[in-house]
Amino acid sequence: MNTFGNIFRLTSFGESHGQAVGGVIDGCPSGIELDIDFIQNELNRRRPGQSNITTSRKEEDKVSFLSGVFEGKTTGTPVAFTVTNKNQESSDYDNLKDIYRPSHADYTYAMKYGIRDHRGGGRSSARETISRVVAGAIAKLILKKLSISVIAYTSQVGNIALDNDYSKYNLSQIEATPIRCPDREKAKEMIQLIKEVKADGDTIGGVVTCIIKGAPIGLGNPVFGKLHAALGSAMLSINAAKGFEYGQGFNVDMQGSEANDLFYNDNGEIKTLTNNSGGIQGGISNGQDIYFRVAFKPVSTLFMNQKTVDKTARKTTIEAKGRHDPCVLPRAVPIVEAMAALTILDYYLLAQTGLSF
Amino acid sequence: MNTFGNIFRLTSFGESHGQAVGGVIDGCPSGIELDIDFIQNELNRRRPGQSNITTSRKEEDKVSFLSGVFEGKTTGTPVAFTVTNKNQESSDYDNLKDIYRPSHADYTYAMKYGIRDHRGGGRSSARETISRVVAGAIAKLILKKLSISVIAYTSQVGNIALDNDYSKYNLSQIEATPIRCPDREKAKEMIQLIKEVKADGDTIGGVVTCIIKGAPIGLGNPVFGKLHAALGSAMLSINAAKGFEYGQGFNVDMQGSEANDLFYNDNGEIKTLTNNSGGIQGGISNGQDIYFRVAFKPVSTLFMNQKTVDKTARKTTIEAKGRHDPCVLPRAVPIVEAMAALTILDYYLLAQTGLSF
Amino acid sequence: MNTFGNIFRLTSFGESHGQAVGGVIDGCPSGIELDIDFIQNELNRRRPGQSNITTSRKEEDKVSFLSGVFEGKTTGTPVAFTVTNKNQESSDYDNLKDIYRPSHADYTYAMKYGIRDHRGGGRSSARETISRVVAGAIAKLILKKLSISVIAYTSQVGNIALDNDYSKYNLSQIEATPIRCPDREKAKEMIQLIKEVKADGDTIGGVVTCIIKGAPIGLGNPVFGKLHAALGSAMLSINAAKGFEYGQGFNVDMQGSEANDLFYNDNGEIKTLTNNSGGIQGGISNGQDIYFRVAFKPVSTLFMNQKTVDKTARKTTIEAKGRHDPCVLPRAVPIVEAMAALTILDYYLLAQTGLSF
Amino acid sequence: MNTFGNIFRLTSFGESHGQAVGGVIDGCPSGIELDIDFIQNELNRRRPGQSNITTSRKEEDKVSFLSGVFEGKTTGTPVAFTVTNKNQESSDYDNLKDIYRPSHADYTYAMKYGIRDHRGGGRSSARETISRVVAGAIAKLILKKLSISVIAYTSQVGNIALDNDYSKYNLSQIEATPIRCPDREKAKEMIQLIKEVKADGDTIGGVVTCIIKGAPIGLGNPVFGKLHAALGSAMLSINAAKGFEYGQGFNVDMQGSEANDLFYNDNGEIKTLTNNSGGIQGGISNGQDIYFRVAFKPVSTLFMNQKTVDKTARKTTIEAKGRHDPCVLPRAVPIVEAMAALTILDYYLLAQTGLSF
Repeated sequence: MNTFGNIFRLTSFGESHGQAVGGVIDGCPSGIELDIDFIQNELNRRRPGQSNITTSRKEEDKVSFLSGVFEGKTTGTPVAFTVTNKNQESSDYDNLKDIYRPSHADYTYAMKYGIRDHRGGGRSSARETISRVVAGAIAKLILKKLSISVIAYTSQVGNIALDNDYSKYNLSQIEATPIRCPDREKAKEMIQLIKEVKADGDTIGGVVTCIIKGAPIGLGNPVFGKLHAALGSAMLSINAAKGFEYGQGFNVDMQGSEANDLFYNDNGEIKTLTNNSGGIQGGISNGQDIYFRVAFKPVSTLFMNQKTVDKTARKTTIEAKGRHDPCVLPRAVPIVEAMAALTILDYYLLAQTGLSF
Repeated sequence: MNTFGNIFRLTSFGESHGQAVGGVIDGCPSGIELDIDFIQNELNRRRPGQSNITTSRKEEDKVSFLSGVFEGKTTGTPVAFTVTNKNQESSDYDNLKDIYRPSHADYTYAMKYGIRDHRGGGRSSARETISRVVAGAIAKLILKKLSISVIAYTSQVGNIALDNDYSKYNLSQIEATPIRCPDREKAKEMIQLIKEVKADGDTIGGVVTCIIKGAPIGLGNPVFGKLHAALGSAMLSINAAKGFEYGQGFNVDMQGSEANDLFYNDNGEIKTLTNNSGGIQGGISNGQDIYFRVAFKPVSTLFMNQKTVDKTARKTTIEAKGRHDPCVLPRAVPIVEAMAALTILDYYLLAQTGLSF
Repeated sequence: MNTFGNIFRLTSFGESHGQAVGGVIDGCPSGIELDIDFIQNELNRRRPGQSNITTSRKEEDKVSFLSGVFEGKTTGTPVAFTVTNKNQESSDYDNLKDIYRPSHADYTYAMKYGIRDHRGGGRSSARETISRVVAGAIAKLILKKLSISVIAYTSQVGNIALDNDYSKYNLSQIEATPIRCPDREKAKEMIQLIKEVKADGDTIGGVVTCIIKGAPIGLGNPVFGKLHAALGSAMLSINAAKGFEYGQGFNVDMQGSEANDLFYNDNGEIKTLTNNSGGIQGGISNGQDIYFRVAFKPVSTLFMNQKTVDKTARKTTIEAKGRHDPCVLPRAVPIVEAMAALTILDYYLLAQTGLSF
Repeated sequence: MNTFGNIFRLTSFGESHGQAVGGVIDGCPSGIELDIDFIQNELNRRRPGQSNITTSRKEEDKVSFLSGVFEGKTTGTPVAFTVTNKNQESSDYDNLKDIYRPSHADYTYAMKYGIRDHRGGGRSSARETISRVVAGAIAKLILKKLSISVIAYTSQVGNIALDNDYSKYNLSQIEATPIRCPDREKAKEMIQLIKEVKADGDTIGGVVTCIIKGAPIGLGNPVFGKLHAALGSAMLSINAAKGFEYGQGFNVDMQGSEANDLFYNDNGEIKTLTNNSGGIQGGISNGQDIYFRVAFKPVSTLFMNQKTVDKTARKTTIEAKGRHDPCVLPRAVPIVEAMAALTILDYYLLAQTGLSF
């Protein structure tokens, strides 16, 4: 259950305070020039300590490749990579050894496995997403050759929300703000809210919107292999994700006559006048933009004391310690993109098996 | 991509107007008494024509078992079943042979496969969900032995919505109304709305809420095998589903101090004071109720003419014909339950492989 | 574990004396004309009662298709099919209800599942192979379009063996003898041996040789996805199969200088002077003929009394009853071909996912 | 296709002359004490340069663990490990850059991927089997707790063969000879033969026999998941493997009355008088010893010049260079054991999902 994908498959490993986190990519197309600068840049977008609204932990997160690359190009064999864990202050977590933090995975891991690496959340730490971002960066390099692009942004923090219609925003402005929101005004408000929440020792949730452009018609499959089911599963596998919707999503107060995307002839090409379908019809991409939204809960680690129990069920208090994010949103953006890239590339490769005679 | 599950696996087959729809269940535990009446009753809950707010098509939908059962009990070998297609009026669809209906799968299937069974939507018809309801009913029989129950209801139609807190409702009242909503007053409003929409030749969307009670601690896995990712994928594979959220979901305007579920000692047992986590922490069930919500779009088939194109991209008009539902919600309830039962049983069986020493 | 394949996937179901045996093919290419006569003819090659050296049971074995076919062509959706069980004399097996037959699956099924359909061997009956032959026939129809052919023959019965070099035989003569051996003289000897063994109430084993011609270079994968590992697994899944070898196989008394297949330039094309590799190098097809051999044990059901135990471990005797084959070889030939066709087509489709840039 | 197993899953990576080879084990039971000495000792059994009948290459092959272990015990999360490549003399292979070595994977890799890491065979090198031996050693540690053991030995080299009946040999003597053959006299002859073949610049094939003791009744599944099909696939995935047989295997000149394993009552327990079934009936273990044999071809690299072609199909000659084994048999023994341990543990875990009511 640590492998993602059908054809382009990422196997992820590593704990927060172990030797390293990393992954193995199986089914990687051959002959792809491995652009290390691009991959490292993607990792830097995920890295803690990148701005004053993320955690103050500094993690260098340099990726090393162990296999699958020859003279700078992928060979079609498994691409293994590691990112060494440095600057891990395990003693920060000594007080958590026997305590279950509220809304973390401490209790469920302990119950399931009978043993728990409590340092930094162990395997449940968001540090695991490093492997996704590296693999996603490689997927993006391949998608680029196929003229498919993936872009995401923060569309809501707390009650500060953008319009659902992404076409209203200049997506080239996303990286211009540390919150990764293309609307400058809203970005300021979001940042202000995060600072206030942080000052209170608290945390806040939000939403990421993601758009996939250039996906060909025909990705996805009827019934259980629907493209949006795969995207949903991918997104919900991200730490702190609580919901997924595509197209009109939870906006259910629409009537069919309003929601239906009418076909028209655009100089001989069949297109739709609207895109409430989110680019997917019957589980299969229809050539329009694919877009979806992912909800993230507030970070469970707080800068305030919380009541809880220890492993003997005895009442205790967790004291505020360590360094963490007041809001996952800005760092969730590259992770959402990575998972979208992995899914779309996987389904692109899978679609190659569909011969028609 | 027509197989669902890891251990308890349903392979589904069949088109709306073919000979039959059906499925094969692999990995079914042995020694289960196959309660045909219960299975048929579940199918009846899905059946068209069951009330005046569903389609007027009458489909008998009698299930036959072909294998895997001996002297009334499952043997551990594949359970194959079929439901013969009757009362299919294929001529109703003659006009659709060369036309792409808006927001249906006609266009994407035609592009992907180069051939399309246009009669009643073919494989993309919700008639396929029969196989899920039969397999889900068998899963429920097994879950019952494990003291796990699954129950769902309509929590929103158009803008008429119940409170998100399911504990406010008497779930034994769900089947008392044809809309399958436990709040009698809201149910009346929903039915009234559907009737109005239908009178306009239009359709309307909504939301189903589902609750799983009695799931043991430890179902689900870290990283990609998170229980809510599996549930999300299962729900999003249902026809017309557009979104999935669990626990606090898209309600992201919460602060961590408000969202966190504090642990307490309940006579020696560890429980949580609240359940914003939706019964799942770090992707693993924590012993509390698991609950989630699924958004459904309005039915794409309307009782009014719609503009579209044919397969040569020429403009044309679809004339209102055939029989269909003005709102999928009441019939979606048993399908959501079936997919939840399949997922939970599959993860229950999968969890048996997790030895601890 | 009743599903075979990665992309072209057969899910098999059915017991010997249940309602029907059958299967569901997922991932079937679209637009293939379903040649029912060809498929039925393949089934007839497997059918009992086809000659005086097979069982005298008469089974009609007519295949019906339930889905995945529209106007005679495959649509890319699951192809489900059934063969109704007729002429099953379940009372023949009444005496076996509580008895474990030697070298059958009676004991292991009973222990594993706690329940057993004893009639005709239930799921362990070779009648299950009907589903493989139907699916294999469809695979052959597709392979034909790809200029790939699969042919098998009986190369050994008891101690009567053909030369390992298949090029010495006229493969068009295989079906000319009921034992399916291309060497007329050896065929006579084999048939004579089978008749003698049968007269003694006994049974005898043998070997099937299979050749795949026209497979393109590049099928199969490094490490665990080696083409010969997939073929081996496929063959060993056939009832009564005890061994698999490809190329030089168990002929290990060769030195490297003798076994190595030297490359040469055949008018610009790279070929090998010999083919001890069996058409597969490093797990990947090299464009030469792929060939392998499968060993089958003697049928475990005898026409003589045998000592055994019942389910309470009490000594008892099985009396000779029922109708069975004295030798599986002639009927194993089409089953070997079917599994080879399924494997090669699956790996052909899988190879489509291997993009090179 | 670089992942092995259903529940206990090894993902393997690495090329002969890359940074490292290694693997990731998913689905590893928790709480297992990781006995590093035992694991390293298993690696040493596989290591080149261990005796004068193996290659003279000295490879230290020290294993490092990156994840999945906390305070010396497995945590249930992925266990990643690497073995750094040292003492790799890549320049030994410069002459092979554009040349296809006979009966190696050079040609098929080049054709499949369009790019090839020619140094030491790249991914097709038997150095990959390091990952199998490490994972297999961990599997053995777990199997030990389940009272299951796996042991293999060299049973044939060239034409020097042991009796097929392993009960005739003292298996505690296997490691006493460098050829890993329990019969001292035959071992001497085998070693003598290997030395003669090596002196001629040639290589020789052989057979490994493997026995699994203590496997419980019920491992394996009907139809495609037969235990011997899984073992066959596992063994055939090993470099240079050409054949697999279990029980009576290719010894097909037996009659049913001779081959059948009669059941008897051994103080209340059901056992078989003989074990021609190889411990597996109907694909499911029956509680008797499981045993099988694996054929290995002679090493394709010779100490003599060989004619071949280069990548432009031009004739050329490969000059004898590098260091290699004259016979894989002694080093194949621990690899066969490792794959057997991986398979049996995987099927043991899988069998836990089979609930009976």
